[in-house]
Amino acid sequence: MLPTSLRTNTCGELRISDINKIVTLCGWVQKTRKLGGATFIDLRDRYGITQLIFSGEDGNSEILNQEGFSRETVLKVTGLVIERESKNKNLPTGDIEIKLQNVEILNNSITPPFTIEDETDGGDELRMKYRYLDLRRNVVRKNLELRHRIAIETRNYLDKQQFLEVETPVLIKSTPEGARDFVVPSRMNPNQFYALPQSPQTFKQLLMVSGFDRYYQIVKCFRDEDLRADRQPEFTQIDCEMSFVEQEDILQTFEGLIKHLFKTVKGLDIASIPRMSYADAMKYYGNDKPDTRFEMKLIDFNSTTKGKSFKVFDDAETVIAICAKGASEYTRKQLDELTEWVKRPQIGATGLVYARFNIDGTLKSSVDKFYNEEELKKWAEICNAEKGDLILVLAGAEDKTRKAASELRLEMGNRLGLRDKNIFSCLWVIDFPLLEWNEGDPNLLASLAGRWHAKHHPFTSPKPEDIELLNTNPGAVRANAYDIVVNGVEIGGGSIRIHNKDLQAKMFDVLGFSKDDAQKQFGFLMNAFEFGAPPHGGIALGFDRLCSLFGGADSIRDFIAFPKNNSGRDVMIDAPSEISEEQLKELNINIITKK
Amino acid sequence: MLPTSLRTNTCGELRISDINKIVTLCGWVQKTRKLGGATFIDLRDRYGITQLIFSGEDGNSEILNQEGFSRETVLKVTGLVIERESKNKNLPTGDIEIKLQNVEILNNSITPPFTIEDETDGGDELRMKYRYLDLRRNVVRKNLELRHRIAIETRNYLDKQQFLEVETPVLIKSTPEGARDFVVPSRMNPNQFYALPQSPQTFKQLLMVSGFDRYYQIVKCFRDEDLRADRQPEFTQIDCEMSFVEQEDILQTFEGLIKHLFKTVKGLDIASIPRMSYADAMKYYGNDKPDTRFEMKLIDFNSTTKGKSFKVFDDAETVIAICAKGASEYTRKQLDELTEWVKRPQIGATGLVYARFNIDGTLKSSVDKFYNEEELKKWAEICNAEKGDLILVLAGAEDKTRKAASELRLEMGNRLGLRDKNIFSCLWVIDFPLLEWNEGDPNLLASLAGRWHAKHHPFTSPKPEDIELLNTNPGAVRANAYDIVVNGVEIGGGSIRIHNKDLQAKMFDVLGFSKDDAQKQFGFLMNAFEFGAPPHGGIALGFDRLCSLFGGADSIRDFIAFPKNNSGRDVMIDAPSEISEEQLKELNINIITKK
Repeated sequence: MLPTSLRTNTCGELRISDINKIVTLCGWVQKTRKLGGATFIDLRDRYGITQLIFSGEDGNSEILNQEGFSRETVLKVTGLVIERESKNKNLPTGDIEIKLQNVEILNNSITPPFTIEDETDGGDELRMKYRYLDLRRNVVRKNLELRHRIAIETRNYLDKQQFLEVETPVLIKSTPEGARDFVVPSRMNPNQFYALPQSPQTFKQLLMVSGFDRYYQIVKCFRDEDLRADRQPEFTQIDCEMSFVEQEDILQTFEGLIKHLFKTVKGLDIASIPRMSYADAMKYYGNDKPDTRFEMKLIDFNSTTKGKSFKVFDDAETVIAICAKGASEYTRKQLDELTEWVKRPQIGATGLVYARFNIDGTLKSSVDKFYNEEELKKWAEICNAEKGDLILVLAGAEDKTRKAASELRLEMGNRLGLRDKNIFSCLWVIDFPLLEWNEGDPNLLASLAGRWHAKHHPFTSPKPEDIELLNTNPGAVRANAYDIVVNGVEIGGGSIRIHNKDLQAKMFDVLGFSKDDAQKQFGFLMNAFEFGAPPHGGIALGFDRLCSLFGGADSIRDFIAFPKNNSGRDVMIDAPSEISEEQLKELNINIITKK
Repeated sequence: MLPTSLRTNTCGELRISDINKIVTLCGWVQKTRKLGGATFIDLRDRYGITQLIFSGEDGNSEILNQEGFSRETVLKVTGLVIERESKNKNLPTGDIEIKLQNVEILNNSITPPFTIEDETDGGDELRMKYRYLDLRRNVVRKNLELRHRIAIETRNYLDKQQFLEVETPVLIKSTPEGARDFVVPSRMNPNQFYALPQSPQTFKQLLMVSGFDRYYQIVKCFRDEDLRADRQPEFTQIDCEMSFVEQEDILQTFEGLIKHLFKTVKGLDIASIPRMSYADAMKYYGNDKPDTRFEMKLIDFNSTTKGKSFKVFDDAETVIAICAKGASEYTRKQLDELTEWVKRPQIGATGLVYARFNIDGTLKSSVDKFYNEEELKKWAEICNAEKGDLILVLAGAEDKTRKAASELRLEMGNRLGLRDKNIFSCLWVIDFPLLEWNEGDPNLLASLAGRWHAKHHPFTSPKPEDIELLNTNPGAVRANAYDIVVNGVEIGGGSIRIHNKDLQAKMFDVLGFSKDDAQKQFGFLMNAFEFGAPPHGGIALGFDRLCSLFGGADSIRDFIAFPKNNSGRDVMIDAPSEISEEQLKELNINIITKK
């Protein structure tokens, strides 16, 4: 890096070839130690660590004799680059050290509330309160450097594909038919509110109507949800839209992006990304975002198990098995514990039946009373089980059991070490249903319950061959919609959009909008479709999630510089907070006094 | 561009070398005309225009015989690339045309409310309401393509300088000591509000405390101002911060950025950017963002003119002249009109005195009664006036007259053609005052009137040699602050920041914060300074303004895809708008009924 007024070099760049240079570095004291008559200081900056050495006999550095330096003191040091006697092969600068001639304290530090090390003693809450210190830790900073790199490579790829980056507005109109909107009272337009975008969806579609042809943006979006673990009220999307395309073009283009990112950021070659219908994903994985790093598919056990007088299976709406390879030697204790695990309320199964295909070829189940070895052989056959495998069976109501089986599959994947964070398995899930019935989703306004709800969003086009079903069986209509899933995590999704005014109006009708409401909220888009809207479609990728996936982490929080906690609070700056009466009055709003 | 399912090529890419290819294009009908037995269609997309030709005798295109195509119809056409008989040298595709074999209407268009041409018949309001059609016009789209390009080149430069792009939060805390905040009620934290950032100032400083060393972001910021012409409630900044630097490093680094942008985007080599103190800018230009494309400096005329019995000058706090080169032949009518111009309330002068230095060497003024030719010669001498020049003199109260002289200078610059949009003159203005007295700025909360107000912001460091003055004469304290000015437009500004807790606390004290308020609003930053904050500083460039400057336009609005009007409204989507009672109730707020 080019020198600045305060330093000639960074703490990461000096090498053996720099020996005999006089250099000036700035950085933080990582640690100090005395050895014989010499003092060693590790000086740290973003770029690395350089060892400083000072022996008592040297001249003009009284400061070093007078005091030690506490950790995190900011120093400006000048000295001679010399070769190290005992080199440190783990450090890029490990061949050299700086023989100090002068030291200046640029700023002092009181003792940090936790250690600034990769393995810190700071708990989550403390780290968030002092996030600016947490960000000093290499592991956290590296996450954000990774994020920076992924952003650059995303732009490189999309720029080359002639996507134009266009900024869409943040102060828009409330259309709370998706999740809840964050709103912003307007001082200049009393009684009126802006909303923060849940996504730039309508704007990117308008850009297609404008002939922008290919649009992208790495953009903040906002959703006022009851925060589940690892959700943030503000999050970042790679948001894209293309004109004159069909689904296949979008899958190809963004498969290209995913491959480019894996290649340039992780050095990995990703094979062609397979595709699976939503129906198959639900059938074989019980889940619309299957983790395909491992098989262990869900197996329909109804015809295999019913009619053998085992009431639990006979009375169940469905019976589903999975076959855990090489787990036949699970102990009774392990199996009991697994049974407790599936009975947890989050999983919701009522019990667990198992059958061991022992190494010696015998078969043994927890329901031997009802199924003899001959029957169990059939089980094994249908499961493609081999000696050493363990068959696990769940039964109950269809949806609940399928979900529980999916969870059990993932859990067994974990326990059997099949979910290696360094293996990446990508999948397109396609042919999603257009609609789902809203029984009363707590993340939606209560007034939207008991209606059809758009599975992706109201602008997703139904498959042309299914349009007729909108009148007769809306739940059966499939959409031109797709998700990209990596290792069981939905990284993004998109669709071919409606570009016809009448079809869009029909869609709002199915979603329970009055003509008036549809016109009021989305009239501008439907009107735009009358002026020559091109066929178009797009995708949005969850950028925070993508970064955490690339970083091999489960949580997105450490890939966001200043995240909020599960109550939507920034505990560092203490936001949200109360505002003054003067501000409220100017905005023409009152707080309803709390009961 | 790579083909998609719907097209093999764009409307901008076919050349003579493509002759005899069968191609499929998609686009909008720009115009249709019949000539002899043939029909010609100009088909338009983002990439260009391609001429389509169809002669009645050809086979399978009945659709073309049956109907014409109204403008803006979306077509998918297939045909043979042939050489044009009469080539169009103004069009990159002008050597070829497509002999149509098949046409498919992808979407119809009703008649647009204005013509989709560079020179449109649509007024401002109509264009904003149908912004998606306005964006179809080449001139508008090219503005946004320019913006895209400037963003890419900004990132290229900063990435190379090892700046890390870090996203800072949008939902933060209200600290309305600058302009007014937009606020966002929190549903999860009743009675509390987030604020939208006026800039990521405190966060980027915290990133420096974190050792991020170099940060940048192209980021949306928000200010709830009474909108003046050409201000937007949401705007975009190139926001940067660096550690271990002094002012000189920042000026060098961002002079580098400005040069890089002029070179890569405009193909212009910009010379080293001169620097001028705030004091000199006010003295010579009456303005802290002087347009240095031309001289015509303000000249102190006090000693020259006073004491000659001309009461207007004698009684004035100040007398200021400018010398308009080559304007001596301005007619009486022109001068009268100019006098009316300076007397407009926006300019605020009480009158205008002039003196002509005629081509024949004679001197003639509007105040000959008080100043003889000998005196006028002195005027000319002090103004460095030559034969053919016109001296214009204003007198009155210091601030008002200086401001009026500045306006007059710019106006004369316009009239004399000295402000060519294709000439770029850059300038650093440095040594700004740290504070200014707030008499009651309508863009600040009323409660802040009658206090010192930070000229840049409360985090700007005073010059070390002026710190003592904070106690005795705050208005005289100079800041380590700088603005970059191009052609009289402030493109950005920044400062070296305070990185010491005590000095920051002192600063809040001077600004009239109680200790408690300072701690409540900015405690997190002052606390952070205790843990080893490095010396740091930065800059923010107004991205919308930079784009409009590069585009040679006066208004930023056409460089924003979806701008708001002067009432902060998006007239296309009709935002802001009312929200439902259900939403208000969930947010625990009421609207105060309007009187």
